[in-house]
Amino acid sequence: MKTIIFLFYDGMTALDAIGPHIVLAHLPEVQVKHVARKAGAIQTDAMQLTLIAEHSIEDVSRADVLVVPGGGNATTLEQYPEVLEWIRAIHQTTTWTTSVCTGSLILGAAGLLQGLSATSHWAVMDRLKKWGAIPMQQRVVEAGKIITAAGVSAGIDMGLTLAAKIAGETVAKRIQLGIEYDPHPPFDCGSVAKAAPAMVQALRAAFECRFEKEK
Amino acid sequence: MKTIIFLFYDGMTALDAIGPHIVLAHLPEVQVKHVARKAGAIQTDAMQLTLIAEHSIEDVSRADVLVVPGGGNATTLEQYPEVLEWIRAIHQTTTWTTSVCTGSLILGAAGLLQGLSATSHWAVMDRLKKWGAIPMQQRVVEAGKIITAAGVSAGIDMGLTLAAKIAGETVAKRIQLGIEYDPHPPFDCGSVAKAAPAMVQALRAAFECRFEKEK
Repeated sequence: MKTIIFLFYDGMTALDAIGPHIVLAHLPEVQVKHVARKAGAIQTDAMQLTLIAEHSIEDVSRADVLVVPGGGNATTLEQYPEVLEWIRAIHQTTTWTTSVCTGSLILGAAGLLQGLSATSHWAVMDRLKKWGAIPMQQRVVEAGKIITAAGVSAGIDMGLTLAAKIAGETVAKRIQLGIEYDPHPPFDCGSVAKAAPAMVQALRAAFECRFEKEK
Repeated sequence: MKTIIFLFYDGMTALDAIGPHIVLAHLPEVQVKHVARKAGAIQTDAMQLTLIAEHSIEDVSRADVLVVPGGGNATTLEQYPEVLEWIRAIHQTTTWTTSVCTGSLILGAAGLLQGLSATSHWAVMDRLKKWGAIPMQQRVVEAGKIITAAGVSAGIDMGLTLAAKIAGETVAKRIQLGIEYDPHPPFDCGSVAKAAPAMVQALRAAFECRFEKEK
């Protein structure tokens, strides 16, 4: 039985977690736990959407897989050194340590990305350098046992990539078919390379504002 | 201020709701509410993942947009005629009534799909006929003010399609870039047309089992 842990925290982006969750929770012989600094209601970054963490970090000391989602300002977690300490300790026990979106900045703050290639949400990619990581503008980046995914929706791609590593391609493909993941985005503008430069610039500025307290 | 309502229920699939939620919650001038038969903790169909519905159906009498997610056996809601009655009443007030995955079977049970084209998860598509709907193997199907999406992950495509209708293409594109929705599925097997026939058959049989109580 493999244990897959999702770190939850106030201000997290729900889809960052729920994307890989739908994939990894369908693996055979896994148990999934949702863990936060304190067990209980977790306020996501969107419109009163509330998730429950049924475990506190002090109750969980190991995992086969750790998934750290991002959030509007993921650096809020840096206020809690006990969480970063817990991430470091769990990482010692994992087969795979993963992040989605700005969750990679949390792995960075925990000291796990020093000298490693990693990705993040495109708008905050350069902030990876603060933690000694090498930013890669890719959907999913593997560096040893650490797998980082790009912004928000990239967690689904990361989840399927990881599912294949854990349980083989056939299982991963079955899950992909089960969630009917045959995406047809209505617009072709989901990456920096494809979107209008003015839109990229405006959105980057908006993201910078959210992170400005860090400066 | 537009009101966007997500119907939550025990056994729902989290991504069915969270996919469109990440999109629609980023529209300008909207309020989003999560509504269930009884307000409180909602157990999704995967591994103790729990969401909170902060409103009961009796507290909510109108919406500009209604989103009904699917679930492992969405027909469980048919046990609650008051929920179907509520869906019918809300539908009278909406600009858009929508579903993701087997959520369309709930709209069907509420009597909203009679004579209309609709989609659902591929494995239960034919069950739409029970409710007088015309099954369409498409990612997103529009029929008047009702928009149905295919399985699970299709809710993101539906959300963006709807976002463009509500707030214009520029806003929808900005949201798509914000959630970095430039999908790169690791395998090309996310639809019936693309997956191996044996895998399709096995998964269809598994879905049929979940719905067998209905027979």
